[in-house]
Amino acid sequence: MTNIKIGICGLGTVGSGVFNVMQRNLADINARASNQLSISLVGCRRDNANCDLSSTSITRDIFDVAKSSDVDIVVELIGGTTVAYDLVMTAIEQGKHVVTANKALIAEHGMEIFARAEAQGVMVGYEASVAGGIPIIKALREGLSANRVKWLAGIINGTTNFILSEMDSKGRQFSDVLVEAQEKGYAEADPTFDVEGIDASHKLAILASIAFAMPVSTEDLYTDGITQLDPQDVAYARELGYAIKHLGIARQTTEGIELRVHPTLVPEVSLIAGVNDVLNAVMVNADAVGTTLFYGPGAGAEPTASAVIADVVDIARSMSSLSETWVPALGRDLNSLESQNVLPIEEVETSFYMRFSALDEPGVLSNITKIMGDSGISIEAIIQREQPAGEDYVNVIILTSVTKEKCLNEAVSHIEQLNTVRGSVSFIRVEHLDQM
Amino acid sequence: MTNIKIGICGLGTVGSGVFNVMQRNLADINARASNQLSISLVGCRRDNANCDLSSTSITRDIFDVAKSSDVDIVVELIGGTTVAYDLVMTAIEQGKHVVTANKALIAEHGMEIFARAEAQGVMVGYEASVAGGIPIIKALREGLSANRVKWLAGIINGTTNFILSEMDSKGRQFSDVLVEAQEKGYAEADPTFDVEGIDASHKLAILASIAFAMPVSTEDLYTDGITQLDPQDVAYARELGYAIKHLGIARQTTEGIELRVHPTLVPEVSLIAGVNDVLNAVMVNADAVGTTLFYGPGAGAEPTASAVIADVVDIARSMSSLSETWVPALGRDLNSLESQNVLPIEEVETSFYMRFSALDEPGVLSNITKIMGDSGISIEAIIQREQPAGEDYVNVIILTSVTKEKCLNEAVSHIEQLNTVRGSVSFIRVEHLDQM
Repeated sequence: MTNIKIGICGLGTVGSGVFNVMQRNLADINARASNQLSISLVGCRRDNANCDLSSTSITRDIFDVAKSSDVDIVVELIGGTTVAYDLVMTAIEQGKHVVTANKALIAEHGMEIFARAEAQGVMVGYEASVAGGIPIIKALREGLSANRVKWLAGIINGTTNFILSEMDSKGRQFSDVLVEAQEKGYAEADPTFDVEGIDASHKLAILASIAFAMPVSTEDLYTDGITQLDPQDVAYARELGYAIKHLGIARQTTEGIELRVHPTLVPEVSLIAGVNDVLNAVMVNADAVGTTLFYGPGAGAEPTASAVIADVVDIARSMSSLSETWVPALGRDLNSLESQNVLPIEEVETSFYMRFSALDEPGVLSNITKIMGDSGISIEAIIQREQPAGEDYVNVIILTSVTKEKCLNEAVSHIEQLNTVRGSVSFIRVEHLDQM
Repeated sequence: MTNIKIGICGLGTVGSGVFNVMQRNLADINARASNQLSISLVGCRRDNANCDLSSTSITRDIFDVAKSSDVDIVVELIGGTTVAYDLVMTAIEQGKHVVTANKALIAEHGMEIFARAEAQGVMVGYEASVAGGIPIIKALREGLSANRVKWLAGIINGTTNFILSEMDSKGRQFSDVLVEAQEKGYAEADPTFDVEGIDASHKLAILASIAFAMPVSTEDLYTDGITQLDPQDVAYARELGYAIKHLGIARQTTEGIELRVHPTLVPEVSLIAGVNDVLNAVMVNADAVGTTLFYGPGAGAEPTASAVIADVVDIARSMSSLSETWVPALGRDLNSLESQNVLPIEEVETSFYMRFSALDEPGVLSNITKIMGDSGISIEAIIQREQPAGEDYVNVIILTSVTKEKCLNEAVSHIEQLNTVRGSVSFIRVEHLDQM
């Protein structure tokens, strides 16, 4: 049993969660770490009323934590990619192991951080950076190590899932639910990162790196948010037997890797369609195991602390052994990672949900189906819905067969040119997941 | 990079899966193990037509594998608890690491095996013994190491889940679906282990040991199978908004640990109610993370191989480091495990579904509700269903509030004594999972 000293940087929501769970469950955590852990130093701009700091050393300069001779493992929970980057790199230079919950940092600077950590002979844990308390990094990196991953698809942003769940179950508008999400603390004052899909794209880049042995990068990753989503599409999707979820999808094809974040119709009978509110879930399909799903809270003080501390325990248990025996940050030697051809979204093949407004006249639908056919797209289902009384136009909803997005774009542009069609054609990608 | 030699004992369904996945994905597996793995010896009574054994050494005596100087890790896939026990103990005595998919062996002899392995300085991996390809042992032992588990509940036997799914979706009889399950290879010729819940009890004992830091034991574990389940109860449950699943449940209470395997009504809106066919899922509720769920294939050649090889990779990566840095078999030092007070089923508190046949007369129901009240049980819902025409009796279905099973038993015995009630009262336990 060795005394292993933890330094926590940042005492906000997650920091206080880590502090409190460490205090509450210390005996069990020590038993699992096969060592004596203690929080030797906390760096924070101000104390947190939720934490009893009476017997803890505190500094107002987080860099003290990274440099302290009294710290073995630095836990970075300040967020952002500027100071956090400097802090993590300083800790590594000082020979400290690092645990972080910072997805933006790992997505943007992960490769540099992991390389520097390897050179310095320290570990970097980042389980908490994806899907909060769900041990998905460990599952993908270790639990499924026998497999070649074919695809993964995840609800990896709790804010967007909460908003979509509300739009779905109550027919509410995006902007209306967003205000509630902000009031509940599910969404930031500036919700851009969440609702535009940027946060999900960071997490997807991390998952894809492990799954497909490629460097972590958001370059070429297609990202679309939920701000444009219309409640009527959520309702029509239900009518057709689908739920709309904001998914991060990574998929190996013979032509390259698909990497994309966007609203997606999924069959309502699929398990992932039942994942609601702020919860997260990641499906992984791999050649040996088949389809697995990992579900749980994707954010929050203690769920995130659960993942942070699991990393601390892993590091504490193995830090005294040779670095060759450690689990590599991305599951294999950094030098063995290879950049992959990421497919442009136009080359991605999915089914599509389409909606547009067309004149309720004979011949209109046959024109449209001809355009679809000319673009090589089969129609799986088509429904027409009356507009309010006195309107000459009806809503036309189409579910297509699997097609390349560029073919869909071609059909869309032809349909939009018809003078029997009013306005633009909106479309949402459809995935059947188990059949991917 | 060291050459690490694997010996496989048993080349049946799982053995051939391990052999083939190892061959197919060897480059990736080596990259993740940070070593060169090879199958140096296979012990099997007969070859398996699914495996290309042309460049593999074979022996007809599996004990050769356990004793071979050319084997570092022995993979036990012969099943059973007699020869398999001797084989695993021989391998350990010979200083070999062991990986097994054998839940009966671990449930019955795990403590002895782990202790002997510790004394000999070798590891024993058993991820494949519970929930097939789902990395639930790793999740519970490492991924959730920050937590105190409050309860876990799992569909951990694919055969019973297949049978229940068919009874539910098609209204079929147990015995009828069992024959189909046997034809499909989902159930053994002697299905006792599966349908009587014994297999699930082995797996639950293993999960509970990690979750609650207690020795692995099926002693005092309450086990009930699905053979007595009546299709009409499956249908009534649906009417009330529940699915019936065969669950293994372990729960910490102030009075002791509940350890029980039985058919259970779960709300049909819960995620686990959507886990059908031969698939498995384990829910874990813990103090920091909240509720998580791990889903995937619970059996089959390659899903099980996925878990076996993950253990092999973990062992291969860490076998050269000091044993103090290894993850202990049950997540903490064996000496720190403590036997827990396992509650007799009569002391367990749940809600109940009850069904019985009562005369369709005034006053009958009020007698019954009085009996329930006298036993301290509230009624949450009651429905009455007509019997075929000409019958004087109706089916009465009751959902109770949470009560101790001994109170329910008392009420049942009084109801059965009423001369307005015909035959016996059948009941099934109800769990709301997230509210447990």
